[in-house]
Amino acid sequence: MLKDLKKQVYEANLELIHRGIVIYTWGNVSSIDRKMGLVVIKPSGLNYNDMQPDDMVVVDLITGEKVEGKWNPSSDTKTHLELYRFFPSIGGITHTHSINAVAFAQAGLAIPALGTTHADYFHGSIPCTRELTKKEVEDAYEQNTGKVIVDHIQNHKIDPMAIPGIVVKNHGPFSWGKDSAESVYHAVVMEVVAEMNLKTILLNPKANIPSYILDKHYMRKHGKNAYYGQEY
Amino acid sequence: MLKDLKKQVYEANLELIHRGIVIYTWGNVSSIDRKMGLVVIKPSGLNYNDMQPDDMVVVDLITGEKVEGKWNPSSDTKTHLELYRFFPSIGGITHTHSINAVAFAQAGLAIPALGTTHADYFHGSIPCTRELTKKEVEDAYEQNTGKVIVDHIQNHKIDPMAIPGIVVKNHGPFSWGKDSAESVYHAVVMEVVAEMNLKTILLNPKANIPSYILDKHYMRKHGKNAYYGQEY
Amino acid sequence: MLKDLKKQVYEANLELIHRGIVIYTWGNVSSIDRKMGLVVIKPSGLNYNDMQPDDMVVVDLITGEKVEGKWNPSSDTKTHLELYRFFPSIGGITHTHSINAVAFAQAGLAIPALGTTHADYFHGSIPCTRELTKKEVEDAYEQNTGKVIVDHIQNHKIDPMAIPGIVVKNHGPFSWGKDSAESVYHAVVMEVVAEMNLKTILLNPKANIPSYILDKHYMRKHGKNAYYGQEY
Amino acid sequence: MLKDLKKQVYEANLELIHRGIVIYTWGNVSSIDRKMGLVVIKPSGLNYNDMQPDDMVVVDLITGEKVEGKWNPSSDTKTHLELYRFFPSIGGITHTHSINAVAFAQAGLAIPALGTTHADYFHGSIPCTRELTKKEVEDAYEQNTGKVIVDHIQNHKIDPMAIPGIVVKNHGPFSWGKDSAESVYHAVVMEVVAEMNLKTILLNPKANIPSYILDKHYMRKHGKNAYYGQEY
Repeated sequence: MLKDLKKQVYEANLELIHRGIVIYTWGNVSSIDRKMGLVVIKPSGLNYNDMQPDDMVVVDLITGEKVEGKWNPSSDTKTHLELYRFFPSIGGITHTHSINAVAFAQAGLAIPALGTTHADYFHGSIPCTRELTKKEVEDAYEQNTGKVIVDHIQNHKIDPMAIPGIVVKNHGPFSWGKDSAESVYHAVVMEVVAEMNLKTILLNPKANIPSYILDKHYMRKHGKNAYYGQEY
Repeated sequence: MLKDLKKQVYEANLELIHRGIVIYTWGNVSSIDRKMGLVVIKPSGLNYNDMQPDDMVVVDLITGEKVEGKWNPSSDTKTHLELYRFFPSIGGITHTHSINAVAFAQAGLAIPALGTTHADYFHGSIPCTRELTKKEVEDAYEQNTGKVIVDHIQNHKIDPMAIPGIVVKNHGPFSWGKDSAESVYHAVVMEVVAEMNLKTILLNPKANIPSYILDKHYMRKHGKNAYYGQEY
Repeated sequence: MLKDLKKQVYEANLELIHRGIVIYTWGNVSSIDRKMGLVVIKPSGLNYNDMQPDDMVVVDLITGEKVEGKWNPSSDTKTHLELYRFFPSIGGITHTHSINAVAFAQAGLAIPALGTTHADYFHGSIPCTRELTKKEVEDAYEQNTGKVIVDHIQNHKIDPMAIPGIVVKNHGPFSWGKDSAESVYHAVVMEVVAEMNLKTILLNPKANIPSYILDKHYMRKHGKNAYYGQEY
Repeated sequence: MLKDLKKQVYEANLELIHRGIVIYTWGNVSSIDRKMGLVVIKPSGLNYNDMQPDDMVVVDLITGEKVEGKWNPSSDTKTHLELYRFFPSIGGITHTHSINAVAFAQAGLAIPALGTTHADYFHGSIPCTRELTKKEVEDAYEQNTGKVIVDHIQNHKIDPMAIPGIVVKNHGPFSWGKDSAESVYHAVVMEVVAEMNLKTILLNPKANIPSYILDKHYMRKHGKNAYYGQEY
């Protein structure tokens, strides 16, 4: 079942290692088959080197129950499911503990939009969620992590496909995209941009960028008259 | 004698190089056979590339005397022994000079608990010992290094398996675990967390984390109802 | 057509990956045949691993029109052309989003001349352009990016071959040289020097260098009595 | 002539690349045959990948004239010679532009002794020379660079084998040892210690270390009762 999607999710998980933004088991990638209402995700705590495509776990979008697979799904599965439920445009999700993005999460700060590298992929600052309450952590931690992400996006009227990532306070980055590969790509961009912006802030705490430059860079890649890249 | 343990300790020492937290001979890993009261440790000043499992040195836990091996044991052997003597749950110990953890040691600061990456392995801040006195350094430096570690843990009523590491002021990190491999794993985590936390502090000197998030992350991996990973 | 130049430009683009200053498609290199008035440049948004020399695109220096090639040229082509038109000594141009140089660009700061590593290649601070106006961005963004670079160099009476690079505010570094390989070399130097200088500023915000040391280092490599290297 | 020494110097130069502290041609290593009064050094501006042992250049210690070799010697040769002339215990010298050591040089600051990693190799802070005067730069720049190093060591009554390195203001690190390999080893240590210490200073600008810990670590490796490593 879902053989192609398992292979995609497997390869996207390995890409986290190849890009150097994950060590050990510190990341997970998932993808969704919207027609079947099923999510494919990395097994919990398994080493990347030991995995095969068939080790990916299939989970039901609505019930959260495991539908197929010999392993437990990632402990962050309920966070992924919450995002898939609320944002139908999301096709893949990545979570990492990449160092520079985590630094912003631990500092409780958004990764500010300061340059065109950022604007090529994120149409505005990458937000930081509020802290979870004690009750939220104790009741249903992973699902509530998803809920604070969803709440932030909805309360701030953000288009999740225009700002395809967020940092969860004291935790780390989540990113997404049209599929698992794009969610990993955005995780890498977020990490690099976080390093650029941390260094920018050290050089000039008042650094900023006019919104018309952000708009231009985002639109030349993603707007309806986009002219970056090739038409295939 | 202790052929398997020598192989484990040998491989754990090499893992320090592969993970990029040690150059030259700047680290050492040991493990203990509790039944026999013997500790296996890296030889002093030998290059990792030149070592074989048989080069590991066997030392008596109580007397500190060499029991087997053609080389001198690591110059830090007496520090390892002190930890094994006082904490029966420790099965393996690692010492490195990894850059970011050393920065905290040199600054005389604990590596503060600021996020969930930290909390997944260390249930609270990773402490920094007090400075050794002149007399302690001149009398029995390596053993007294062990003693200030033991003192700090005992005086602060720390469970050494819940916070499996410490930085020695002006020196660097020591970590431990149930075996040599786990002690290396904790050395790597400590280095990554130190880099995350240094960068967090640069972004926000007042960064902190509620204790209920620390508890949750530690407990979901290590508590009696842990649900991270797989049941084998 | 221009088979040798295509190969040079192709190899110069790959060198960006090998030197670790570009990931994904985040850089582009071009070169010019002055006699023919033609510029060879990387195709837009194509992965480095998938490219062959024949994928390079040929563009007319004056009209900016594509003369040969199956792909769209880099979206930054018009910036490159503007530089080739105004500075006849430029034979190759590189644009990257290398992390430390971008930090200076985002901070709106020149990369100051603080040491001899810098002076060996750049005879003075590497300037930062002014911000583009809203009108400049909306009218002809890429061409106007070239224009603010040209304006800065001309207004400050800079010899572009003595300071072969600049950072565009909020964007990132452009560098150049007598050919594509030298422009890449200067891109690497700029990134390393940016990291050195950021760290210098953190240690000592008032760091500086006497002009006679800058002059000496630059002149012993590039002056008419240069004595660095070999005479072939 | 000096076939073995040429091979040693060649391999020591390559080691700079393997250890990641030099890119392009940004470093040079030499060694001396004291009996013959001859120094073997890297050729100027030659790529490491293109070199063979036979490309090393032989120079007379006293006259500075080339005695053998098809290339010009390193442009820094006269700095090396000055050190060999004044300090008979030096057997090999390395110069690099490694990033963190250069940051201290550009900041005009010594690399302070803050920890045991430092003390294992350098018995005190690694000093920073004074700035060269305009006359010194214009008259005989490379030789005068050697002279300010020699002056600093002599004026401060430093034993050059106990503190085997220095940073030249606005320039970068020079290190030495009993042979070329040891001088490279010290260049690597200096770079790592510079990074540790820069990060320590960011965490705690008042960080320091008691002299008795420095003494202990240095002496257990280098004192007459040294017990680190193996007796062969």
